[in-house]
Amino acid sequence: MSSDFAVTVITVRGMTSTSATTATDSAAGPLADLIARHEEVLGQAAAALSARTFYARYPDSPSPRVHGEGAAEAGLTAYRGHLDADFDLGDQPNTGASVGSEVSPYGPVLGVRYPQFDIDAGLAAALAAMRDWRDAGPRARAAVCVEIVDRLHARSFEIANAVQHTSGQPFVMAFQAGGPQAQDRALEAIVAALVEQERIPASARWEKPGRDAPLVMVKDYVCVPRGVALVIGCNTFPTWNAYPGLFASLATGNPVIVKPHPRAVLPLAITVAVCREVLAEAGFDPALVQLAAEGDGERLAADLALRPQIAIIDYTGGPAFGGWLEREAGALGKAVFTEKAGVNTIVIDSTDDVRGMLANLAFSLTLYSGQMCTTPQNLYVPAAGIGTPDGVLSVPEFATALGEAIGQLTGEDARAVELLGATVNDGVRAVSAGLADLAAEADGEIVVSPREVTHPAYPDAVVRTPGVVRLDVGREDIYTQECFGPLSLLIVTDSTEQSLAQFVDTVREHGAMTAAVYSTSEAVLAAAREAALDAGVALSENLTGQVFVNQTAAFSDFHGTGANPAANAAYTDAAFVAPRFRVVATRRHVPA
Amino acid sequence: MSSDFAVTVITVRGMTSTSATTATDSAAGPLADLIARHEEVLGQAAAALSARTFYARYPDSPSPRVHGEGAAEAGLTAYRGHLDADFDLGDQPNTGASVGSEVSPYGPVLGVRYPQFDIDAGLAAALAAMRDWRDAGPRARAAVCVEIVDRLHARSFEIANAVQHTSGQPFVMAFQAGGPQAQDRALEAIVAALVEQERIPASARWEKPGRDAPLVMVKDYVCVPRGVALVIGCNTFPTWNAYPGLFASLATGNPVIVKPHPRAVLPLAITVAVCREVLAEAGFDPALVQLAAEGDGERLAADLALRPQIAIIDYTGGPAFGGWLEREAGALGKAVFTEKAGVNTIVIDSTDDVRGMLANLAFSLTLYSGQMCTTPQNLYVPAAGIGTPDGVLSVPEFATALGEAIGQLTGEDARAVELLGATVNDGVRAVSAGLADLAAEADGEIVVSPREVTHPAYPDAVVRTPGVVRLDVGREDIYTQECFGPLSLLIVTDSTEQSLAQFVDTVREHGAMTAAVYSTSEAVLAAAREAALDAGVALSENLTGQVFVNQTAAFSDFHGTGANPAANAAYTDAAFVAPRFRVVATRRHVPA
Repeated sequence: MSSDFAVTVITVRGMTSTSATTATDSAAGPLADLIARHEEVLGQAAAALSARTFYARYPDSPSPRVHGEGAAEAGLTAYRGHLDADFDLGDQPNTGASVGSEVSPYGPVLGVRYPQFDIDAGLAAALAAMRDWRDAGPRARAAVCVEIVDRLHARSFEIANAVQHTSGQPFVMAFQAGGPQAQDRALEAIVAALVEQERIPASARWEKPGRDAPLVMVKDYVCVPRGVALVIGCNTFPTWNAYPGLFASLATGNPVIVKPHPRAVLPLAITVAVCREVLAEAGFDPALVQLAAEGDGERLAADLALRPQIAIIDYTGGPAFGGWLEREAGALGKAVFTEKAGVNTIVIDSTDDVRGMLANLAFSLTLYSGQMCTTPQNLYVPAAGIGTPDGVLSVPEFATALGEAIGQLTGEDARAVELLGATVNDGVRAVSAGLADLAAEADGEIVVSPREVTHPAYPDAVVRTPGVVRLDVGREDIYTQECFGPLSLLIVTDSTEQSLAQFVDTVREHGAMTAAVYSTSEAVLAAAREAALDAGVALSENLTGQVFVNQTAAFSDFHGTGANPAANAAYTDAAFVAPRFRVVATRRHVPA
Repeated sequence: MSSDFAVTVITVRGMTSTSATTATDSAAGPLADLIARHEEVLGQAAAALSARTFYARYPDSPSPRVHGEGAAEAGLTAYRGHLDADFDLGDQPNTGASVGSEVSPYGPVLGVRYPQFDIDAGLAAALAAMRDWRDAGPRARAAVCVEIVDRLHARSFEIANAVQHTSGQPFVMAFQAGGPQAQDRALEAIVAALVEQERIPASARWEKPGRDAPLVMVKDYVCVPRGVALVIGCNTFPTWNAYPGLFASLATGNPVIVKPHPRAVLPLAITVAVCREVLAEAGFDPALVQLAAEGDGERLAADLALRPQIAIIDYTGGPAFGGWLEREAGALGKAVFTEKAGVNTIVIDSTDDVRGMLANLAFSLTLYSGQMCTTPQNLYVPAAGIGTPDGVLSVPEFATALGEAIGQLTGEDARAVELLGATVNDGVRAVSAGLADLAAEADGEIVVSPREVTHPAYPDAVVRTPGVVRLDVGREDIYTQECFGPLSLLIVTDSTEQSLAQFVDTVREHGAMTAAVYSTSEAVLAAAREAALDAGVALSENLTGQVFVNQTAAFSDFHGTGANPAANAAYTDAAFVAPRFRVVATRRHVPA
């Protein structure tokens, strides 16, 4: 009946193996090397992720002692090599046209020309690449992914320059958050994906006791991908926010189309090029990762999101398009992971370290001109003031002291720009420029005035220190709006109890990526923890040192929770990874 | 500032504890007893789930040797006590009206009157109950849930009668699938939820190396529920298909509204009553589980599904409403888990055990009159016939032999009804009655004729043996439709290769809950496994004994995959559990 079937099958399907472990077991050459080389780091990272203790594979200091003399210069040279040139994506399908309109928030035009993505050809190539990647199994995929991240790490300085000149981040931050810290978030996603898949045994022997002899079956389980994944990048953190979804999808077997923000293409273009290089070296089709560069005014993200081949979408950006994706792609049954925005909140009750608190708050507000999705916006203070070891600090005194603390960080232009970076777009600039109008509209007062900073190297950069507007707790109409940029609101409440109640209500309704509390009272801290659970947002307590509310650490801190409207997912929990693959089992009897 | 804050907080919030372990640690009385009592079974079940080996807590034989003399009679008496009476749900919010219109597929009117669900009051009560349940922590919730299932087990005979007379299942099946096997699926969901939550440590010490001293933080992690969960039951498997979602949601902290099918309320009403009884005994608000009984013509499931309080939906039933839920509730960002329907497929190539194969197939087609979501519908056979040890079995010979095997199981009415049960509704009866029309429309032929069976005890029951229609592979228009009921299609293909290709294409497009292959060729089996991976459906190979393709075993087999259109989820994988809760962290510095 089927004497010559094997040949036919092999011709038609390419391979007949269905075991999840076959590729790994039989892997030879580059793939076997990768699996062996990255076994240890995968084990270490999995242990850290499980215990949620400190772990970092990629050192985030830009010091030459870490990266070697000349690394920074070589990275800058590599970055400059991309400018005013065609970006090489090898044989990735494209329309033949070139696109690209990046302008640095610091001023210079980048002039990089990218091959325009060809949707139909790109999706077809992605699907065609999927089977071998699936059959490779979880561990081979994880090893390839770690190799990609290691190669990205080696290009951290090049990527840092690309991040700086697309996001407007200051250089050191662009290096740290855009390089090693993003790489650690990538590794976290890879490990989470590997652990999740390896929780499913490759095979099980099932013995059901019977009257005479047991019923015995062998069952094999294979993790299969959902389809093609789409990663939609953002302007401000092109790598940090794209890597978790990119690597979670890739490590679970899905080809990935990376659609960068049109103003922040280069960091992800370099990333995609590295992915393709490593995939090809390991014997896989580089079409597993493709860059979807688009021309001005195209709606490529929306077009791609609705294509039936796309099964998974990761998005970071504004709430309008994020909400559209959740509705439209969610209605089509796609797995949609979004990080949008919210009203990040700090409840200030009392402190035993006024200087530490002010310095910490000032840094959080200043860093990258408040353009982090985690920057505090709403600072609640009780009208009666803040308890300190030296007595009550009144609201006006607190505001003045906060302004002074910001001034200490930003008083000197050359130093200030190393924290502030540059404003990324006109929307952010309008927020800063509109402070007086906002204060008037809110019946409030500017209590910390923004200052124009002149960048010593980039005179065209628009740089502003953070401003703070005081307003009354009754003006929910103002403070439940997200004001993205260098602006925070000092909201005067009747009591800390009211502060906490407003914290819960506003975050439940409008979302938040971060929250913090300052108090010396255990009862207030306990109530704040309860409020954080109710609001569904992570809480930092009494930060007065070198940890800031806007920072989350891979392997230990969840970034976002998925429990409030700011984001429907967290980096990285099981819910971020498990829905990206399915398990297909085969079962058969074997002798007892 | 906050000297009297603690009192206020306690007044306002009821409790200030935020530790996930507090309730467990300090649990006294009934809750502590439950946690201790069920620790061992939770450990055993977790081990089985992880290894996916055989495990069953609840013996599924209805024998008095297992359940004690008189258990069956007592269960029947308890069942009869519900008939023509008001069902007691204690103080569950209701409108004051009574609803209920259940009629047994075997004939009798049940006459049970249920308090009509009050949507607003019920949702408010559910939300109010949520906090204490959340604060109890994962292990206390799991212990309470196991206690519920143990109590359900003790009422297995009562529930079996309720399942029989709502679904039309034969009694033994109603006992097994509606009782112990459903209970094991419940336990599986509870354990999966517990394991998933306990993967998150309650606390972690995070030490980041610093220049002088490390930065040290303590971080606490709490699993928080998503909101209120809605479980929408089905007519044919009211408990088996409802328990996984019910217990997965409850064990992860979410209150659950159980909306039964209007024709199959009683099994879930008993279930809800048991849930409420155990919850109250353990010190929790019984509003955590409520029955949403509705009057004729209400659209309660749809109304509830769109309510903002509902965050999670589990559904089993027809594709039309399932698709609506996926679209409409999916667009609202709710977690939607559906099991709908598909075209379950068997590819028959060759066998070394003709009698075993035929007996197995006949049983799969006959059981519950083909009214299982897992019953095979599409049987692909090559036109050249099926290879056997005695030579080729032609398609007509195979069809005849299959008819004979069905006849052996169903030839005698009294024995037949113990397998067939009763047809559940007019739709199913129409499928059986429309066989000749279908054959004519398909240019096919009835190769196994259905037989009218008279139920010796219930003359009003409509009972039919399965029919089989032969048609050509070209008639995709016919065999890509789901024909729910005692009807299967024998699809004649050019070759097994074509059978497998059609298997992949039809399942990818139309879905399947189950698939099987018969072949003596390793190459064909390998190709079938590959096809199953491509189609995204589990595969049973060469079943010739006492395991049937329509059966899946808790802890080992996934029911559904989520990888094809028949269902977007599987019982039970991490993707079924992890999205039902979120993690909220709090962090603070501690001395190094």
